[in-house]
Amino acid sequence: MSDFTPPTKDQLLAIRVNAGIEELAAAERFAAAEPELVEAIAEGIGQFAAGEWAPLNRVGDLQGAKLENGVVRLPDGFAEAYKDYVEQGWNAIAGPVEFGGQGLPFTLACTVLENLGSANMAFTLLPILSVGAIEALAHHGSDAQKATYLPKLVDGAWSGTMNLTEPQAGSDVGALRSSAEPITEGEHAGKYRIAGQKIYITWGDHELAENIIHLVLARLPGAPEGSRGISLFVVPKYHVNADGSLGERNDLRAVSLEHKLGINASPTCVMSFGDNGECIGELVGAENRGLAAMFTMMNNARINVGNQGVQIGERATQQALAYARDRVQSARAGAADRSPVAIIEHPDVRRMLLRMMTLTQGARALLYYTAGQVDRGTLGSANSAARAEVLVPLLKAWGTDVGVEIASIGVQVHGGMGFIEETGAAQHYRDARIAPIYEGTNGIQSADLVTRKLALEGGAALDGLIEDIIAGSAADPTLAALAQDCADIVAWMRDTASLDDRLAASVPFCTMLAVATAGWQLARQRDAIAAGGNDGAMPTKPAVVEFFLDRIVPEARGLKASAVAGAASLYEVSTAALVG
Amino acid sequence: MSDFTPPTKDQLLAIRVNAGIEELAAAERFAAAEPELVEAIAEGIGQFAAGEWAPLNRVGDLQGAKLENGVVRLPDGFAEAYKDYVEQGWNAIAGPVEFGGQGLPFTLACTVLENLGSANMAFTLLPILSVGAIEALAHHGSDAQKATYLPKLVDGAWSGTMNLTEPQAGSDVGALRSSAEPITEGEHAGKYRIAGQKIYITWGDHELAENIIHLVLARLPGAPEGSRGISLFVVPKYHVNADGSLGERNDLRAVSLEHKLGINASPTCVMSFGDNGECIGELVGAENRGLAAMFTMMNNARINVGNQGVQIGERATQQALAYARDRVQSARAGAADRSPVAIIEHPDVRRMLLRMMTLTQGARALLYYTAGQVDRGTLGSANSAARAEVLVPLLKAWGTDVGVEIASIGVQVHGGMGFIEETGAAQHYRDARIAPIYEGTNGIQSADLVTRKLALEGGAALDGLIEDIIAGSAADPTLAALAQDCADIVAWMRDTASLDDRLAASVPFCTMLAVATAGWQLARQRDAIAAGGNDGAMPTKPAVVEFFLDRIVPEARGLKASAVAGAASLYEVSTAALVG
Repeated sequence: MSDFTPPTKDQLLAIRVNAGIEELAAAERFAAAEPELVEAIAEGIGQFAAGEWAPLNRVGDLQGAKLENGVVRLPDGFAEAYKDYVEQGWNAIAGPVEFGGQGLPFTLACTVLENLGSANMAFTLLPILSVGAIEALAHHGSDAQKATYLPKLVDGAWSGTMNLTEPQAGSDVGALRSSAEPITEGEHAGKYRIAGQKIYITWGDHELAENIIHLVLARLPGAPEGSRGISLFVVPKYHVNADGSLGERNDLRAVSLEHKLGINASPTCVMSFGDNGECIGELVGAENRGLAAMFTMMNNARINVGNQGVQIGERATQQALAYARDRVQSARAGAADRSPVAIIEHPDVRRMLLRMMTLTQGARALLYYTAGQVDRGTLGSANSAARAEVLVPLLKAWGTDVGVEIASIGVQVHGGMGFIEETGAAQHYRDARIAPIYEGTNGIQSADLVTRKLALEGGAALDGLIEDIIAGSAADPTLAALAQDCADIVAWMRDTASLDDRLAASVPFCTMLAVATAGWQLARQRDAIAAGGNDGAMPTKPAVVEFFLDRIVPEARGLKASAVAGAASLYEVSTAALVG
Repeated sequence: MSDFTPPTKDQLLAIRVNAGIEELAAAERFAAAEPELVEAIAEGIGQFAAGEWAPLNRVGDLQGAKLENGVVRLPDGFAEAYKDYVEQGWNAIAGPVEFGGQGLPFTLACTVLENLGSANMAFTLLPILSVGAIEALAHHGSDAQKATYLPKLVDGAWSGTMNLTEPQAGSDVGALRSSAEPITEGEHAGKYRIAGQKIYITWGDHELAENIIHLVLARLPGAPEGSRGISLFVVPKYHVNADGSLGERNDLRAVSLEHKLGINASPTCVMSFGDNGECIGELVGAENRGLAAMFTMMNNARINVGNQGVQIGERATQQALAYARDRVQSARAGAADRSPVAIIEHPDVRRMLLRMMTLTQGARALLYYTAGQVDRGTLGSANSAARAEVLVPLLKAWGTDVGVEIASIGVQVHGGMGFIEETGAAQHYRDARIAPIYEGTNGIQSADLVTRKLALEGGAALDGLIEDIIAGSAADPTLAALAQDCADIVAWMRDTASLDDRLAASVPFCTMLAVATAGWQLARQRDAIAAGGNDGAMPTKPAVVEFFLDRIVPEARGLKASAVAGAASLYEVSTAALVG
């Protein structure tokens, strides 16, 4: 496995051009985000991630998380590396100031996660899950809950989890059956007795943090069926005493760990709550409003998963570049000199490498553009908040799809060595595959795009994005043509298509719009560099952008026929005939 | 992991329509290939594969091949399952009649391998490698070598291997350094002392067969450098006595097994020849003509690897269909009935499943079309032999690329369960990934297409294929347009493009032409069914063909811009800048 070199320069470019950090820092709330601090954070987290977390990526894969005698054991070195991460304050970058956070823009939290995740994707799920718990409590917790849990979650001494899924309730969260019984007497009066089993609980148990704060969706007695009868509870692993010290262990446990394709260092737990009828939790927010509370944090969680596509893309690309530079094989075709050359000199290998680079950088540009819109939303711009809503499924779905594609090309660049586990290329291919699935499958993202997001603000949110791309791509006719294709499809969806047609179109359309947006944001990078007169500072950027516009964009246009093919052809054949 | 149901009906359709078995059986050589026998073979091997090899796929992955005390151990059940395979005569289907084979068309050998490989891809590499050894010896061995080795290789009592790769000699086989010293005195006079280390030797050692016949590329003393100085040797694991009984063990051994991403039941060996200076082999064919001898069998070997894309595609598709039929989640969007339905009813899941089906069946149509051309070449048609040469890189590259894509979609259909190893979907995703790499990477295939195959028969071989597709797609304008795109690219390659431009174009062009050919062959299936008036017998075929023509073909057209983008943009950035 090759070393990880933080892509700080490209991140700073994206933070400046795509997120627009200078505008953000002009607002009082984000005034601290001055250029010097931004650079210090990007450089600091890059060094930390490369130095402390990247070396644990392979050992994490090999050893994996293990459940031994009821205790989840992490691979060698993880405990120390997490401790250092907490001590250096990286967990608190974007946390609320009143609970010890730095209150910096979400954009910079993305940079922290990006570096950590490129270094060690499985490990980074630990802070990602904690962020979700922080957001849920910050938005919906009572003052007492905030005071109890947030300071430790923000600094990272405690970690958080999200407990949604049950065996019969995956994409359909509303089908969950875990229960919460109000306690009317005794020391826990006013709290709830939680019972149920949850699956796919990422970092559901471990001993790296002093306590684990579980956020659990469950049903109150007599709650309405479906998603309108779900409430949110905070359920700590160890009870917290009034003075903040830790009390007894709560009645919950990790029953088993899943044997997964990848991210082996991340314990994916089956969690059991209330085996002995003594699992105590507190209601967060209003009764039966749990799913709405979850939605609050879903946008950022989905961005953080889209970010994982960028992360694995960057790491796989670096590894492939290093291998292609070092691996000498065959003379250059047609060259008079018949001595073998590094394979990076061969046209098709170079094509693969540039494809990896352009997809990674395109996804990064989309990531920071999205993060910047989230931050503008936080500052009060309704337009930006709506824009972010539209961008989230694009980033989550396309970003994670290209993460898988890049990792697969990375295996290919390695040839036979790519299939041997010791190079690490195969690990990226395995790790990357989860991201299109969790936090809402990419099919769910695309469905969200062609239903809720299509209708958002009467359609203005989606239309505005496409109009901006068209307006911004006067110099890039292929990009403008793709954006116009998207506009045509939107018109067809609104005027002609049935709901089934839209859903049948959803994935190809999502890809098309994501490529158009990413291409636009890459072109903005190119133009910003040219306007600044410092092309030389990023010598590869023009070629990377050109590759995207000349090759990736036309490929996306090739999806238009699929997008408008409609649903009828999918149902011509009966289900019975389909399954034989 | 779901059961495997042999796709016999679709195979028989492809054998009839795409391979044209009736025409083949009209020739005396293949007169035995009558409809009854063809059906009996397709059904028989399907039942055998499903009944005996498929149940070992998961245990093969879990246990893997292991090297213990110098002996390669296979997973439980493999020895018995191989014995049954040999006893039932499946290894001998296409082997030469004079050495105990049935002499049936290669087309039917493809059916045998297809069923075995869908059942158990890792296991099927054992017979695939033996076929290579049989072909090498049948074409280039002396009469004595044939008499010694072929009967046991044909019936499967012995297995074969191909020893090409060395650490510094992968795609560039000419860089190999293993040596062969002539023996002038003693019992082995006239033979050679082989020395060297080979890597990635598939089924390089095991105890399922009584003997292993290694075909080894090595250099004679004073041989020219590069690929013109390589000779082919036959090196048995156990010496064979004059009476055919097995003698002493030869001086060769498996040094280690690779820890791979997938196909874990297939022992991928590092082989050492001549550690004690006593590894004895015989020259096969002429001195320094070893690479040419290898090329003899390369076409069929590449077809057999392309076949693996079909195999894994079929298995992954069946598994996804079964899961989607059984997994109930969420109500149908927009339906009045809010009860949850099987996910196969949701539009995007159905789109994924139909995509898996159409890619699998398209690759199968291309496989049997290619196999039929090989058989016509065997019967003496120079045109068909040349056509097969053009088809081979299309099938190998595109067939294995879609194998990976289908397996990845299969994971996605399973949602979170797809990432958990116990379902088996993840195994397909891991297993499939080797096929684009070995037997010449897909980049090598594409390079072959735009160099040697572009020029074959003065260009007539490639042009003839494209003309036939255009002529055959009058009723399918999108398909005709894709074929015309291919013709345009060929004209550009010949008239304008540099060698670098062609190589830069090679992979997208290879995909485009493969899709055009597969689409054409699928359309021929559709038309044959319609002409036969028995649409009802294959109720899904029209929809599957329609999906291919309406969606897969336009996607391929989206690659044209990449194909003609040229190489200059790949080299704008210096290598130094590229690697940072």
